[in-house]
Amino acid sequence: MERVLIKGLTAVVTQDEKRRVLRDADILIEGSKIAAVGRDLPGGADMVIDGRGKVAIPGLVNAHTHIPMTLFRGVADDLDLMTWLQEKIWPMEAHLTAEEVAAGAALGIYEALRTGTTTFADMYFFEDAIAEEAIRLNIRAVLAESYIGFGSPVVRDGWKAFEYAKEFVKRWKGRHELITPSLGPHAPYSVEPDLLGASAEAARELEVPLQIHLAEDRSEVDKVTRDYGKTPVRHVESLGLFEGNRVIAAHVVHPQDGEIQILKERRVLIAHNPISNMKCGAGFAPVPDYLKEGVLVGLGTDGAGSNNCLDMFETMKVAALIHKGYTGDPKVVSAQEVLDMATVLPARALGLNVGSIEPGKLADIVLVATESPWWRPLHSIVSHIVYAARSTDVTHVFVGGKLSIEDGRLVTADPGEIVKRAEEAALRLMEKGGVESFLSGS
Amino acid sequence: MERVLIKGLTAVVTQDEKRRVLRDADILIEGSKIAAVGRDLPGGADMVIDGRGKVAIPGLVNAHTHIPMTLFRGVADDLDLMTWLQEKIWPMEAHLTAEEVAAGAALGIYEALRTGTTTFADMYFFEDAIAEEAIRLNIRAVLAESYIGFGSPVVRDGWKAFEYAKEFVKRWKGRHELITPSLGPHAPYSVEPDLLGASAEAARELEVPLQIHLAEDRSEVDKVTRDYGKTPVRHVESLGLFEGNRVIAAHVVHPQDGEIQILKERRVLIAHNPISNMKCGAGFAPVPDYLKEGVLVGLGTDGAGSNNCLDMFETMKVAALIHKGYTGDPKVVSAQEVLDMATVLPARALGLNVGSIEPGKLADIVLVATESPWWRPLHSIVSHIVYAARSTDVTHVFVGGKLSIEDGRLVTADPGEIVKRAEEAALRLMEKGGVESFLSGS
Repeated sequence: MERVLIKGLTAVVTQDEKRRVLRDADILIEGSKIAAVGRDLPGGADMVIDGRGKVAIPGLVNAHTHIPMTLFRGVADDLDLMTWLQEKIWPMEAHLTAEEVAAGAALGIYEALRTGTTTFADMYFFEDAIAEEAIRLNIRAVLAESYIGFGSPVVRDGWKAFEYAKEFVKRWKGRHELITPSLGPHAPYSVEPDLLGASAEAARELEVPLQIHLAEDRSEVDKVTRDYGKTPVRHVESLGLFEGNRVIAAHVVHPQDGEIQILKERRVLIAHNPISNMKCGAGFAPVPDYLKEGVLVGLGTDGAGSNNCLDMFETMKVAALIHKGYTGDPKVVSAQEVLDMATVLPARALGLNVGSIEPGKLADIVLVATESPWWRPLHSIVSHIVYAARSTDVTHVFVGGKLSIEDGRLVTADPGEIVKRAEEAALRLMEKGGVESFLSGS
Repeated sequence: MERVLIKGLTAVVTQDEKRRVLRDADILIEGSKIAAVGRDLPGGADMVIDGRGKVAIPGLVNAHTHIPMTLFRGVADDLDLMTWLQEKIWPMEAHLTAEEVAAGAALGIYEALRTGTTTFADMYFFEDAIAEEAIRLNIRAVLAESYIGFGSPVVRDGWKAFEYAKEFVKRWKGRHELITPSLGPHAPYSVEPDLLGASAEAARELEVPLQIHLAEDRSEVDKVTRDYGKTPVRHVESLGLFEGNRVIAAHVVHPQDGEIQILKERRVLIAHNPISNMKCGAGFAPVPDYLKEGVLVGLGTDGAGSNNCLDMFETMKVAALIHKGYTGDPKVVSAQEVLDMATVLPARALGLNVGSIEPGKLADIVLVATESPWWRPLHSIVSHIVYAARSTDVTHVFVGGKLSIEDGRLVTADPGEIVKRAEEAALRLMEKGGVESFLSGS
């Protein structure tokens, strides 16, 4: 079993039960797991990494994204949702094949790793291709082959797409340590009640997490309430969605009366996407209330189409800021709470043995250099991680004890090849969809 | 006169009248100014810089900061304003000398340059020290020796501090091309009406800009209205502040009835500080209204104490996002409008010959590498600058035709020395002020 020693770190942000920050500490990795954390650990490792001047944090968990949507980064901004979807995104997505999805996923995974993410939860199409890219580039992923009432680009019928999604789960369950398959019915306004109920039942039977978009904007709340006589959270609850399932509910910007209590009791993980929620005009999720009530909250970037990055450092800072602005209270949503939302909280909710730097945990570890001017003076480690660090300060990323990023460079694949393939795939989709790009000279 | 040719740029974001983005273009610099912009410019330059794969933008203008406050980065977050000021900032500031200010300013200027800022507007104390550091590190600055009713750490009496501030203006007026001195009465709640009126008159006589904090939070609006019978903008207008003066009003988060019209007619530059306004719980300035009404808006970071960075790329993205979230309209505050607020608009309001890449303008130019994954696919230049670029993509920064940053490294001073001096200065202040820090081992 390979042993890696990270030696002489300026600090280790353990995110353990006591949220200890250890000064001048080492980390010993054995195989895929953390074996020891502490000062002056014994040598004899196969690989020694110089940790001086660096801070170690648990790898960041991106609780909600559509990772191949990097293909559509910047093709359309500052538009209302329907124009964006109908004139830009859908015409391109209509031509998706597994080849384009793989190309976009590789670009997104490269970006995620480069900026310190070691686990992402994804809802998209052709997820087999995403799983293969995740394994190739070495990142952990919770993947859902998503479906809408009228199907997906893969299978153009909702119930058949659901069958296809279940097959995806069966293909990947227990197949690879990095991949957790899951189910992903799109949203309560786009998937009919019968299919949502069947999805909930399938997740229980297959024993996998279930991901869904929920209560994202006011129009959804209105539509679901009008169509089904219940507000979105109550509607999906009445269909058994939360019954014995680990559920990741993306957004939940607009919970209605009593729904926060339901989310708390059902141990639903809210994937809070502050940047996407603003960019799409959805608003500000009541995160201070969620934290006060003990609802589980994770942080997500959402897809690059509505962000336009997959940068969890940026997302942490924005999450720490916007609720202070919205409530007028500078004390809400502290740096430590934000770091929890990017590490231990989503890890626990997803049932993954990651999210903290402790013996026995999987070695998903990110090293961050502190030499940049924004890191100085080195007054506080946790404050600086959330409010000052730039994602490009990340130098090393371990996933399951293996290096994916070393000295800021992707080491599991050729970055130039990834970029080239993604741009070629994007151009094909834009030409077929009739969408303009600087890249195509238009 | 030295000639520098930047050759083969992927794109030049001119920010000219037509907001043209030129593809495959060169920039010729002669001395301190831009001589030509276009395709295949003739050679014969003293220095040729390979622009391939890079985008040129005008140097960013930070319309409001307190640059030495980098010293206090991360010593106190997630606190209410009074605790933050009374228990942390003021006890440390009480011990400030020109030496600490110089050390903090150098760190702040290093950070600003590294992240693409070429001009900053500053209000603080010991501004002579800041001017010297600005010249040494090669950045443009609009500097105000600030004063409160009860004085400043330099001179502990409001009127004497005002005299000292005027002397600062006289010392620096016309002395160095990089330095524009200005006056900086702190705010309408902290400076009495007589002194504000005298400040306005002095700015007119000395023909320099005037910087002031204005309508930052609700408590200020309440206090000023109670004490003086007028809301803040009307109050300072009635004291002649806007009469014949170039005024930079920082924040203006809470304009009252009719005040937007006053700000427009008086051509006041609002320095919008979205990150600080959120971190301090001040709220969201009505920027969509300002833009609709034609009020001039620039972007600022505010000091590192309430940000905690001086990163104008981050500030641009956050400014483009929060108003969409707050109004629920994804169409407000576009990427192009945000870029204008960071370049041409504040440059024009401050009367500086910068802010666009055109022949005759001062050569304040920033080159941005496009090889990082978040830049790809290269669908849009302006969208990517605002929504996707990370400040660390900056490779070269020219101020007045001279390089301050080359290949991402500060070339005008030793970065290690700057960091060391700033940390030593910060530690002295923290020990004297009784404030804890990771740096001091506490």
